[in-house]
Amino acid sequence: MKIFTAQINPTVGDLNGNVRKILDALERAKHTGSDIVLFPELTLSGYPPEDLLLDSSFIDAIEIKLEEIRLATKDLVVVLGLPRWNPRKKEKFLLNSAAIFKNRELVGFKDKTLLPTYDVFDERRYFEPGSEQFIFEHLGWRIAVTICEDLWQHSGLVDYTYYEKDPVLELKDKRPDLLLNLSSSPYYFEKKHVRLAVFSAAAKTLRCPLVFCNQVGANDQLVFDGHSFYLNEKGELIQIAKGFVEEDLIVEIDTHACPCGFLENGIRDLYSALVLGVKDYFQKQNFSHALIGLSGGIDSALVACIAKDALGAEHISAIALPSRFSSEASYLDAALLAKNLGIELKKIEIDAIFQSYLDLLKPYFGETPFDITEENLQARIRGMILMAFSNKKGSLLLNTSNKSELAMGYSTLYGDLCGALAVISDVTKLQIYELCHFLNRKTPIIPESILCKAPSAELRLNQTDQDTLPAYELLDPILEDYIERRLSLETIAEKRNISLEMVSRLIQQLHRAEYKRRQAPVGIRVTPKAFTKGRNVPIVQKWR
Amino acid sequence: MKIFTAQINPTVGDLNGNVRKILDALERAKHTGSDIVLFPELTLSGYPPEDLLLDSSFIDAIEIKLEEIRLATKDLVVVLGLPRWNPRKKEKFLLNSAAIFKNRELVGFKDKTLLPTYDVFDERRYFEPGSEQFIFEHLGWRIAVTICEDLWQHSGLVDYTYYEKDPVLELKDKRPDLLLNLSSSPYYFEKKHVRLAVFSAAAKTLRCPLVFCNQVGANDQLVFDGHSFYLNEKGELIQIAKGFVEEDLIVEIDTHACPCGFLENGIRDLYSALVLGVKDYFQKQNFSHALIGLSGGIDSALVACIAKDALGAEHISAIALPSRFSSEASYLDAALLAKNLGIELKKIEIDAIFQSYLDLLKPYFGETPFDITEENLQARIRGMILMAFSNKKGSLLLNTSNKSELAMGYSTLYGDLCGALAVISDVTKLQIYELCHFLNRKTPIIPESILCKAPSAELRLNQTDQDTLPAYELLDPILEDYIERRLSLETIAEKRNISLEMVSRLIQQLHRAEYKRRQAPVGIRVTPKAFTKGRNVPIVQKWR
Repeated sequence: MKIFTAQINPTVGDLNGNVRKILDALERAKHTGSDIVLFPELTLSGYPPEDLLLDSSFIDAIEIKLEEIRLATKDLVVVLGLPRWNPRKKEKFLLNSAAIFKNRELVGFKDKTLLPTYDVFDERRYFEPGSEQFIFEHLGWRIAVTICEDLWQHSGLVDYTYYEKDPVLELKDKRPDLLLNLSSSPYYFEKKHVRLAVFSAAAKTLRCPLVFCNQVGANDQLVFDGHSFYLNEKGELIQIAKGFVEEDLIVEIDTHACPCGFLENGIRDLYSALVLGVKDYFQKQNFSHALIGLSGGIDSALVACIAKDALGAEHISAIALPSRFSSEASYLDAALLAKNLGIELKKIEIDAIFQSYLDLLKPYFGETPFDITEENLQARIRGMILMAFSNKKGSLLLNTSNKSELAMGYSTLYGDLCGALAVISDVTKLQIYELCHFLNRKTPIIPESILCKAPSAELRLNQTDQDTLPAYELLDPILEDYIERRLSLETIAEKRNISLEMVSRLIQQLHRAEYKRRQAPVGIRVTPKAFTKGRNVPIVQKWR
Repeated sequence: MKIFTAQINPTVGDLNGNVRKILDALERAKHTGSDIVLFPELTLSGYPPEDLLLDSSFIDAIEIKLEEIRLATKDLVVVLGLPRWNPRKKEKFLLNSAAIFKNRELVGFKDKTLLPTYDVFDERRYFEPGSEQFIFEHLGWRIAVTICEDLWQHSGLVDYTYYEKDPVLELKDKRPDLLLNLSSSPYYFEKKHVRLAVFSAAAKTLRCPLVFCNQVGANDQLVFDGHSFYLNEKGELIQIAKGFVEEDLIVEIDTHACPCGFLENGIRDLYSALVLGVKDYFQKQNFSHALIGLSGGIDSALVACIAKDALGAEHISAIALPSRFSSEASYLDAALLAKNLGIELKKIEIDAIFQSYLDLLKPYFGETPFDITEENLQARIRGMILMAFSNKKGSLLLNTSNKSELAMGYSTLYGDLCGALAVISDVTKLQIYELCHFLNRKTPIIPESILCKAPSAELRLNQTDQDTLPAYELLDPILEDYIERRLSLETIAEKRNISLEMVSRLIQQLHRAEYKRRQAPVGIRVTPKAFTKGRNVPIVQKWR
């Protein structure tokens, strides 16, 4: 039994493009003599289609495209994900389904049983759960089809939720010989391990091999890492596709195949996820050129590296925008980085404009002390100049805010929060250092001085981040405890050996900055809990 | 049977404040000799609590507060909404419940059966549906308790969804003598009629009187209008509480009571909703002072009126920010409006700063023609100056973008899209005219010249909105057809008697501006489909 696992990169809503990718994969599969072609979840619509699903003409158009695909399944079994009308009159009008074709005949539909409705997932908003487990026969094999979450409950590793149904147990009596899973399982840091544990549990319980096909590519906030794989009936990994690229994983089911390991490098994967997030955000919208404000600090340095790897050095413009508070060293750092990356760097002094704002406002502000107002003015002048270049040149501004500062509101709305895409908004400051050291592992792309100096916004004299914030070594783990692990303030205080009062103060500051994050650009999600989609916290609230 | 309907205004997450309001209402109820006190849905947490529900210490704290309330129910029956732990191990760990107390004893819990998961509602994200209908006895009456959506399915008026269960039919066999409903039913334009039709159907089917208690007040985007009411067993309206204010509606159930009408004025209600939206956004965050950029146009004029009615003239600062393209007439209009409202108006010319940006950018932009870049620069200078005042004075900037321009992307990110709260972001341009005429119905508060002149952003010479956009008389109905009514492009073209090509072009323009709306301030929702919460459309998509 030969399975062609088509780890493709669909674009949400791009029916023509997605059909083309599907038909191309079928062609390639035929050339390899494969028996079954397996696609990711919701291949036809792309995942997540969100409220496009509420447009009935979208669902109707998908139905028509499905017919086009059926005709191309001669001599093949094809298992393909799509949203479809629910034939029964139920709470929701749609099903998240897999269509199974065999030599141009529809064998049937498998409807997703477990519908994740937590974190970034909102499948109950659109879909009715399927109730039956689906098995079809091919070449004497009994083949079970499942969709993503269907296999997760069994492992006990799903957070937020406890489904009453367990499709794995329901399949047990049906004794499948092979288990297929269509997924659109988004990346987060080191999720590969979690996925292997989850799917291994299903393979072991059913004592049958499992082939998992995951979507690859980025759509808005979500990055899908691919890493499709084949496990044997003992749940051991036999083959795994590359991450972050399209790949045809051709699986020959063989009970004697030797288990393989896989090279794990969490930081490398994280970097690849960020690069793919940028690349697809641009490509899927037909943009090619990015603009970055290069301060000489570590955040914009990292974003410049990511952008270069995503779009090519010739498609990146960088601008340094020093003010009276910027050190010459910062500019030299930015210039050296730009040289190392081979990207263009302009230098535009903002001090004259800053002074003209101060003069304009003097009659109103009088002798009030220099405060956040004047700091923000500088950040906003930079934002304005960058946006002027973005408008004039048709390039997209990349935002360089990191998760630690977004958490604390240590950023200026309409200033350094400008941009089309927040590249590292889900990366903490400590991880940013790790990523930079990873990039510098062979040759020092990012100048050492950028990595060594104390982080500073350079918006007032001799400012450093730690004038206002605790050390990132202290702050970042607290943020992870609260945001990702949802620990209580008491538990955090105990675990991190600091006062409850200090934890409370930081968490209160985090919640007070909610209004800023609500206006931040969409960001690439790389942890189990990012600030954009998946975290719905009221702005007006008095709990924290 | 005397029912004290406590139409109160809780704040999300404010457990102490909400308990105080509840205990105060119990005191007032005792003074009136009431038998039953009825509160809105999720009274204790405030609605919608969103992801605060995922903080287990929040649910634990609510459990403790409930005990405090139980002790205060001497000689009363109290029906109160709250989230609580699901005692059964089910998909979701929480229930959206009503606790029923009788003279300090817990009679039981009624768990919401139908959980709306569409539009602004995401209850399946948090809650498990209740399965049983609840009846308790008091003074010989059989009293059924239902929560909001529970009564909607029966009417057939729920969009997006078709529940298999119908709690009204399930209650029919139980023959209740009285039906209570706890709601947090958000306002939209003329929703009162829909609600009366929905609840009337339930009362008629069960042939029993119905008392409906709705939350009042605004939390983030949502405004709850109150308008709690009492219907007789024929489904006729007997009593209705005021909208947009807290009120104790004291209902004496009486089969001989005469039906009443109610004064309907959709535009007046819409205005009240916007005022309450601003008022609560400020009060619930302990802000008192608002800042507005007054252009002399109709949008900012309306927002100034709303702000004055919400916060008082002495708490509003307005700034006119003319450029070389602003007419003197616009400033005079702004000045007259400010005088009429009794609000302070400053005038700050932005032309010198605009020129300094042009000079700064000249070496880079050369002789490229004046385009959107230079238009945006002016809007952003205004945004920056307003934000400087906001920062220096601790006031919140009100955003004045309307729904028509937000739809079309006819607005500048980080420019006129700045602000803490988008007051009229869910109001179309045509409705803005209606609201202004409503305000001017007795005396001309808004100068006639503001209402008469052609709308213009005044960002280039002799510009009007209609240089770029179709007439609002044409555009607004198309937007409503597409956004609120979800009609197909073909249907819209036919209905509005325009070419399909033109509809397609407008809808494409609408989707292309998604990235701007994603960074717009949170806006007050006053239609069945606003751009903020409740409409999840991907930025990167190729369907439209």
